[in-house]
Amino acid sequence: MPVSSLVRVACIQMEPRIGDVGANVAHSLSLIEKAADGGATLIVLPELANTGYVFETREEAFALAEEVPGGPTCAAWIEVAARRGLHIVAGITEREERSLYNSAVVIGPQGYIGTYRKVHLWGNEHLFFEPGNKGFPVFHTAIGRIGVAICYDGWFPETYRLQALQGADIICVSTNWVPIPGQVEGREAMANILAMAAAHSNSMYIACADRVGVERGQPFEGQSLILSYTGWPVAGPASRVDEEIVSAEIDLGAARRARNWNEFNQVLRDRRTDVYAEMLGSDIRRGAY
Amino acid sequence: MPVSSLVRVACIQMEPRIGDVGANVAHSLSLIEKAADGGATLIVLPELANTGYVFETREEAFALAEEVPGGPTCAAWIEVAARRGLHIVAGITEREERSLYNSAVVIGPQGYIGTYRKVHLWGNEHLFFEPGNKGFPVFHTAIGRIGVAICYDGWFPETYRLQALQGADIICVSTNWVPIPGQVEGREAMANILAMAAAHSNSMYIACADRVGVERGQPFEGQSLILSYTGWPVAGPASRVDEEIVSAEIDLGAARRARNWNEFNQVLRDRRTDVYAEMLGSDIRRGAY
Repeated sequence: MPVSSLVRVACIQMEPRIGDVGANVAHSLSLIEKAADGGATLIVLPELANTGYVFETREEAFALAEEVPGGPTCAAWIEVAARRGLHIVAGITEREERSLYNSAVVIGPQGYIGTYRKVHLWGNEHLFFEPGNKGFPVFHTAIGRIGVAICYDGWFPETYRLQALQGADIICVSTNWVPIPGQVEGREAMANILAMAAAHSNSMYIACADRVGVERGQPFEGQSLILSYTGWPVAGPASRVDEEIVSAEIDLGAARRARNWNEFNQVLRDRRTDVYAEMLGSDIRRGAY
Repeated sequence: MPVSSLVRVACIQMEPRIGDVGANVAHSLSLIEKAADGGATLIVLPELANTGYVFETREEAFALAEEVPGGPTCAAWIEVAARRGLHIVAGITEREERSLYNSAVVIGPQGYIGTYRKVHLWGNEHLFFEPGNKGFPVFHTAIGRIGVAICYDGWFPETYRLQALQGADIICVSTNWVPIPGQVEGREAMANILAMAAAHSNSMYIACADRVGVERGQPFEGQSLILSYTGWPVAGPASRVDEEIVSAEIDLGAARRARNWNEFNQVLRDRRTDVYAEMLGSDIRRGAY
């Protein structure tokens, strides 16, 4: 009988309220409990789920940020993870001494596992956050290898590739997708398309938890979804505007097995690093265009 | 008044017949003339358009292959390009001494411009062709910077990124897409999704010319399309089974202008090469998983 690596993943699409950390964390806990009641053991929350997203000043962001994992938000998530036997990936406004990071914390039933700090900052985030300085760590856990990305990271195929090459079974994406110029009405979000392509071309699962609502005039796009290693959704996309839990049972081992596409090809091994290295070594790596 | 860089691009979705080079080239010429009659000045043909795709032996492929640009197929394409004032990107079975390549030739009104040789080989191509040894050249032409990819190259975001970083305005994809495991019926081809993601995340045009038909039991997927730098189709996808010309007028300069997404972000300049380089320099570049 083949070894099974079944996991029920849930993406919690919720609406944080800017600045109301206590209420946001309490709300996240009630949704985490609900997802656990539905059988989920791996739960993904949106970007900056504890604070909201649209800061007006760095001082505001600084006052709301907290230490990871020492702050009260992580403590609450660590408690529920232990009590319900969960793995949680959750976006959090992180402060380390006088530096701020747009981070996602990874927590397991035994406690804090690690932190990812957003590598590619978007828009006004440049005014609040330091660029991520922990690379793209892939966390080895009891249920499999978990990678993390945050929102605009998904516009960089490098984000997914560098984690797939470390053997990630699933990338958990904490995100606050905003409307994109050129989006065709009535079609899936381009953010969904990017994630589909990444799941397929790396043969790995991707679970995206987005927020909803309008905050200080900024609308968010919802449409959270869970993608198979084939690139196609196994759950979602969720509504564009409502809170919702998107959930699916997946076999993390299946991604590893299914990577051999025929007797010649395995997409991660077919990379022509000889060609890439030569080109990346030249001036073009600066992307001057 | 803004400088305009308008070009009408046409992707010729056709059905080559295995081994019948004379008929295939004649057929391509009639479709090229038709596209030119419709105003096209940049024309893309499918992969291995001169020979067909499903070889039974290397000897068969070897006998059908020809020199580039010295062979009769290139001569015919060079002639029509000169007479009609065209740029043509066309898939061709190339022989250089005793080596075979799955290539695409780039031709302009003044003649031969250059050759791209498929970097990522698929399936039985490993039995016939040498892996591409010319990197990912981007050709500077009178109408703009033209990059090239062939079929399975599109499964590697590196293909697109390395050409975008050289300033490509458009990537012409000569392809013979085959059915993919996991494809959801009634949804667009995953090959289309991959190209959409690449166009959007590099902010450049992509024009994919696929073949149709069933050859020695192997079906092909059609669905040729032309994508804006937004990632959304400006023409196609074409039928899955019929020959068809897919055509759109695009402004190559618009891709260059539209890359600044806000006062902080330009996707090609936002790459965190510091992070990538460190990770690519480690053992993971071999993709052992």
